[in-house]
Amino acid sequence: MSLIVQKFGGSSVSDAEGIKRVARRIIDTKATGHDVVAVVSAMGDTTDDLLDLAGQLTTEPPAREMDMLLSAGERISMALLAMTIDGLGAKAVSFTGSQAGMITDAVHGKARVIDVSPQRVRQAVDRGYVAIVAGFQGMSPDSNDVTTMGRGGSDTTAVALAAALNADVCEIYTDVDGVYTADPRIVASAQKIDKISSEEMLELAASGAKILHLRCVEYARRFGVPLHVRSSFSTNEGTWVLPSPDDKIKIQEGEPLEQPIISGVAHDRSEAKVTVVGVPDVPGKAAEIFGVIAGAHSNIDMIVQNVSTSGKDKTDISFTLPIVEGKDALDALRDAQERVGFEGIEYDDQVGKLSLIGAGMRSNPGVSYKFFHALHEAGVNVDMISTSEIRISVITHADKLDDAVRAVHNAFGLDTDVEATVYGGTGR
Amino acid sequence: MSLIVQKFGGSSVSDAEGIKRVARRIIDTKATGHDVVAVVSAMGDTTDDLLDLAGQLTTEPPAREMDMLLSAGERISMALLAMTIDGLGAKAVSFTGSQAGMITDAVHGKARVIDVSPQRVRQAVDRGYVAIVAGFQGMSPDSNDVTTMGRGGSDTTAVALAAALNADVCEIYTDVDGVYTADPRIVASAQKIDKISSEEMLELAASGAKILHLRCVEYARRFGVPLHVRSSFSTNEGTWVLPSPDDKIKIQEGEPLEQPIISGVAHDRSEAKVTVVGVPDVPGKAAEIFGVIAGAHSNIDMIVQNVSTSGKDKTDISFTLPIVEGKDALDALRDAQERVGFEGIEYDDQVGKLSLIGAGMRSNPGVSYKFFHALHEAGVNVDMISTSEIRISVITHADKLDDAVRAVHNAFGLDTDVEATVYGGTGR
Repeated sequence: MSLIVQKFGGSSVSDAEGIKRVARRIIDTKATGHDVVAVVSAMGDTTDDLLDLAGQLTTEPPAREMDMLLSAGERISMALLAMTIDGLGAKAVSFTGSQAGMITDAVHGKARVIDVSPQRVRQAVDRGYVAIVAGFQGMSPDSNDVTTMGRGGSDTTAVALAAALNADVCEIYTDVDGVYTADPRIVASAQKIDKISSEEMLELAASGAKILHLRCVEYARRFGVPLHVRSSFSTNEGTWVLPSPDDKIKIQEGEPLEQPIISGVAHDRSEAKVTVVGVPDVPGKAAEIFGVIAGAHSNIDMIVQNVSTSGKDKTDISFTLPIVEGKDALDALRDAQERVGFEGIEYDDQVGKLSLIGAGMRSNPGVSYKFFHALHEAGVNVDMISTSEIRISVITHADKLDDAVRAVHNAFGLDTDVEATVYGGTGR
Repeated sequence: MSLIVQKFGGSSVSDAEGIKRVARRIIDTKATGHDVVAVVSAMGDTTDDLLDLAGQLTTEPPAREMDMLLSAGERISMALLAMTIDGLGAKAVSFTGSQAGMITDAVHGKARVIDVSPQRVRQAVDRGYVAIVAGFQGMSPDSNDVTTMGRGGSDTTAVALAAALNADVCEIYTDVDGVYTADPRIVASAQKIDKISSEEMLELAASGAKILHLRCVEYARRFGVPLHVRSSFSTNEGTWVLPSPDDKIKIQEGEPLEQPIISGVAHDRSEAKVTVVGVPDVPGKAAEIFGVIAGAHSNIDMIVQNVSTSGKDKTDISFTLPIVEGKDALDALRDAQERVGFEGIEYDDQVGKLSLIGAGMRSNPGVSYKFFHALHEAGVNVDMISTSEIRISVITHADKLDDAVRAVHNAFGLDTDVEATVYGGTGR
């Protein structure tokens, strides 16, 4: 008997038919002898509808009330799913984030998990129930208030529960077959990946492959939870994301590898580039700037420090962050401009990020050459560069991103003739 | 500085405009120097929409999951109201039933209040916030589950909070001006009542005057909470329902009374008549039958025991109960038929109840004569009769109910020439 945590997103439970399909999937899983904990998001458009209502009433809603509002969405979907399973003859009980023991910090709208105490979920499972848990939401013990966890919240709920319950696998259901070597809507010849290490998946997710959210992969890797990304429209095997204690060993130079060196090409249009111009070139100024950004609860991705064109003893610092966090970050920077002493800020949200991910990249000296050569051949200018042991990322102009993805995918021999299965939707 | 609890029903917050109107009403009240706690129901059709969704998924949803589902409705309306008030420049914070300390028993769908611990509400008010509380819902400490309180739940939340917070008044906002001597949609000449004792209001509510739910009036009377029933569309004074320690004295025979003897005429179409035929005429059988009904969590209203036509040593017992509880009660009775030893069950949901309410009814020997004479003149047959010190109720055929109401209202001189103000809607 094993325990499986299954996560179903909003598009899987967008209407009564979807809820029934999910209910049957859960019952089928239970019928094969597994215990099941299901994590659900709000139904389809519920969140957008609630945001729209709030927008009609006020321009700057308090974050606490916004969380109270949005958390209603999962209560609806989880209760409907539980009663549907009950109606089909199995036992089910639903739990809010708070009831499921999802303890978070008090940062409304982007709360982070600080503890998981799923006693009620465990008891329900032990008594033969399917436990249905609201994704995306938790409770802050400081204030006893409902919190929501922001982007990737439901995936993170699922993995955090899987870790706390010592589940055998956390299945993430989505509208595609699994993780591909590139976005099949841009690269028609992309291949499904059967197995990938969580380290590589982490780089793919961080690089904008939207199939799994970075937080979810980070959590799974830290707690050794195997993820299985698969389609809710078929019973095909999807992509297994496997934590392995020897990930680090595998990527040592010269180590033989079972998987191909290059895992895939990811891209991301959700980031903007900020350049802080004319920063005094004295110790501590970069820390000061990133302290300001952190204070605005913004997540910086790539960072590059240039020699400034604006004068001596000055430098420019460029970084990328999510476009949705751009306004708060800019406001915070402007407030701090005088104190920090920089000269100005440039902002560009017409950028795209492309990343090549693969274990053993360092052991293969030709990779960088091939990568930049492919970009050059495709006429793509590179604006920023950042690398890790298993990743090369570049920032380009947004218009050039699709061409860049196709060029790199082709250059590394990732193309296949088998057509990818994409079942519609926006790929989450 | 006084504390006012204001309750707004679903029709008051049915859309963005309604929520804004309620927000301004609350801010206006606060501006006159009062602290405000507002209790809200779910927005307009939310509850019906959720019930409809549930109906598409299963025929017999578990009560716990149904409560989880429906309680989402108030979370949405209360968060939207709180952020609207915030947007208008006042401070507001919303609380779920659980956060507001509404402790109930564990009878899902019709939970009863067992304790109110509104510390968080009190703290918020003391800090200058308007506290917005979800009506209709609570939390059962036995199971740590969300409960809903059934019909009249939001009114009861408001009164229970008013009592626990020692509020000066509990204002119940509705779509009519106040309580009338009869339903203005049936009796055009009905008059608004300015003041009524909670005892009389209790009989009016129990007799089907839908403006206030029985539970709410019971609670207000027990804890001495003054109620003010008024329109959310005007600032006119409505009807004050005043608890008075000498209610009992007032209705003693011969006591001088300030208010007119007859308060009003109420009617109710929501009940069905059940007759248990051929019950063995031995002690304890009635108790056994009502035990069965209580076990089905059904609320019996009128009870009449007849000599049976079905044979010697047998009797018939008739009673009325809410139509919505009819099926469960009949199922429970059929299950118990052999054990209790009765012969059969008759069920009639085409009945109406008419009640005449007034303090000092007993002291006025002509009341009963005038009442039954008016019904006779109007050609109304009486099926069951029940009386209290300040009420006479009869069951008639449903078709005859409107005629009966008009005849009795006229016979007791309650008609006025002033037209009642009814603002549409279904009168809650």
